[in-house]
Amino acid sequence: MLHHTLKISLVAAACGLAFATTANAEEVTTERHQAEITTVAEGLNFPWGLAFLPNGDALITEKSGTLRRVGTDGVISTPISGVPEVVYKSQGGLLDVALDPNFAENEYVYLSYSEADPAGGPGNSTAVARGKLVGNNLQEVEVIFRGAPKYESGAHFGSRLVFSPEGYLFVTLGDRYSAMDDAQTLDNHHGKVVRIWPDGSVPEDNPFVGQDDALPEIWSYGHRNVQGAAIHPDTGKLWTVEHGPKGGDEINIPEAGANYGWPVATYGVDYDGSIISDKTHVEGTVQPHYYWVPSIATSNMIFYTGSEFPAWQGDLLVGALKGSQVARLDLEGDRVMHEETLFAEAISGRIRDIEQGPDGAIYVITDDRNGQFIRISNADD
Amino acid sequence: MLHHTLKISLVAAACGLAFATTANAEEVTTERHQAEITTVAEGLNFPWGLAFLPNGDALITEKSGTLRRVGTDGVISTPISGVPEVVYKSQGGLLDVALDPNFAENEYVYLSYSEADPAGGPGNSTAVARGKLVGNNLQEVEVIFRGAPKYESGAHFGSRLVFSPEGYLFVTLGDRYSAMDDAQTLDNHHGKVVRIWPDGSVPEDNPFVGQDDALPEIWSYGHRNVQGAAIHPDTGKLWTVEHGPKGGDEINIPEAGANYGWPVATYGVDYDGSIISDKTHVEGTVQPHYYWVPSIATSNMIFYTGSEFPAWQGDLLVGALKGSQVARLDLEGDRVMHEETLFAEAISGRIRDIEQGPDGAIYVITDDRNGQFIRISNADD
Repeated sequence: MLHHTLKISLVAAACGLAFATTANAEEVTTERHQAEITTVAEGLNFPWGLAFLPNGDALITEKSGTLRRVGTDGVISTPISGVPEVVYKSQGGLLDVALDPNFAENEYVYLSYSEADPAGGPGNSTAVARGKLVGNNLQEVEVIFRGAPKYESGAHFGSRLVFSPEGYLFVTLGDRYSAMDDAQTLDNHHGKVVRIWPDGSVPEDNPFVGQDDALPEIWSYGHRNVQGAAIHPDTGKLWTVEHGPKGGDEINIPEAGANYGWPVATYGVDYDGSIISDKTHVEGTVQPHYYWVPSIATSNMIFYTGSEFPAWQGDLLVGALKGSQVARLDLEGDRVMHEETLFAEAISGRIRDIEQGPDGAIYVITDDRNGQFIRISNADD
Repeated sequence: MLHHTLKISLVAAACGLAFATTANAEEVTTERHQAEITTVAEGLNFPWGLAFLPNGDALITEKSGTLRRVGTDGVISTPISGVPEVVYKSQGGLLDVALDPNFAENEYVYLSYSEADPAGGPGNSTAVARGKLVGNNLQEVEVIFRGAPKYESGAHFGSRLVFSPEGYLFVTLGDRYSAMDDAQTLDNHHGKVVRIWPDGSVPEDNPFVGQDDALPEIWSYGHRNVQGAAIHPDTGKLWTVEHGPKGGDEINIPEAGANYGWPVATYGVDYDGSIISDKTHVEGTVQPHYYWVPSIATSNMIFYTGSEFPAWQGDLLVGALKGSQVARLDLEGDRVMHEETLFAEAISGRIRDIEQGPDGAIYVITDDRNGQFIRISNADD
């Protein structure tokens, strides 16, 4: 049921850059809407994180360590200066980007990334830095969070950055793969969601503050590799989505201090088919809110609230690396009533981030050497 | 991932009947269990309803109007006498069969069926009769419910019969297709779930008792064609599953007096693609608990509670006419966490009823001229 309305428009070489802007649009029939998929820009090098500036421009990270601004016209800027040095290795590099809720006043931009050991050791961990975005420069950059311990691995860094309505900053982390057992202990940041203030200080009411052998930043634990997070628009609660191993991608609604089971309870098996745990239910751990078997390889997710797609308002849209899909979960309250697979045939590429634009359209970036920045807009009659 | 372990065994011609019993088994890999699918009996003529007797024999209705006993050895009996006359036309005929919760004492068997107008008019409606099963005879047969009005149609009779823990009998009904608008008014039984006592009397606390222009048997309304029902083993609440049109099969948890929206609110369109309602949300109507687009053409469902498949305990298993599938919904409390499609490649035929046997195995019947009675058992290593 795909209508191909291919329109190739002018390729503009702007600002002396080699990047091209394109506008080929494809129309897709979904259950509730016709959607038009337009490539706004391409030539991004493994883009990972996407955030919109108040003027409609996008900030996009590239995993290799560059942060760029992409205009609504598709023009991609030169790298923004001042970005911290990253460990660009396997899944590591420059990861998410988020704007301060008071960006208009304070100009703070937050970046998550894999950071080398400042002491010179072989390990690395996910860190979060912030700086003030002035023109194309990030200024007064400071590291506000450093995952502990530094660990030698190129895998499972998380990480997504979201602000709660109260102004807390949630940082979602990974278990570093070979350190998966650490997800069950509280003396490290592996497999945790952490909650900090935007300046990096620890909220006094965090669940493990004052507990011996527990890191005070921890909000919830027993996670595997949490690469998606969003705040529910009505309840204000954090929702996360994490990669399972082979099977067992999970949506959770992390509560303070709760244990989400990894790796002692899981609906998945290891990539080679071997059993990590034969248990899906373990006393003291919380069941997922929703899960996928087989995995769709979840990346980020949003609660859609725009006017562009009225029938999708309140739905959870989950980007996936597998099948070039967005899973639309139709929610009634917190309950999933229905899942629709969107765009699987119309987008080619692993969907690495999904965001709602200031215009109400949906934007995704694809995880590729020639990564695309794609706009999804309404094409109803 | 199908292992074919085809074993053809002796075909027994028993009791002078032409029906054959077979035992060909196929092993299927699912997410949590290996399952073995065995054809216990075949040669049933459009079987519709299935219920197990205390000794493990099955009672199976055939739509044309016969009720038979099928032994655990696959031997199919001659027709049980005393079954009411049915209107065998399109979707109409002898439909569900259920045992009284006190069957061991009172021997009551309940049958739902499409009944002609006793006054001789051209209409018909779903009725429920009960009788005492003595040997192969149904005795003291009495009609305990007659859907109103009688209406000339061969479509959408419902109907499933389930007893609540308190001893109420729920009868699920259809909207008679061309009378769909009646589902929104209370002066008829079209598109309703009704609640009666086993003798047909009306419970005094039914939601519309004493209300002018409302039939007192009505429990909930705004349904389309409810062909599946089960009582949640923990909460004791009624759950139903109904066919949508093209899209929009729904699971509901019908509350007393509530309106489930059909046909003013639906996630489906008419079979020819035309719009029945462009609304999914209408004030005063309840959203489905879970829904399918596209339709899987739901038939009956069970909450699985047996020891045969430990990892499926508490799950909702929904039979479907399309794709020969059973949808396994993994529940946490009432919430659907995950859906798995079971047996789609291993069973050929529309699954018309699904029940849990006294042995904990799962049994289905297929809607076919040569209908099968199939046992699904555990084949884990």
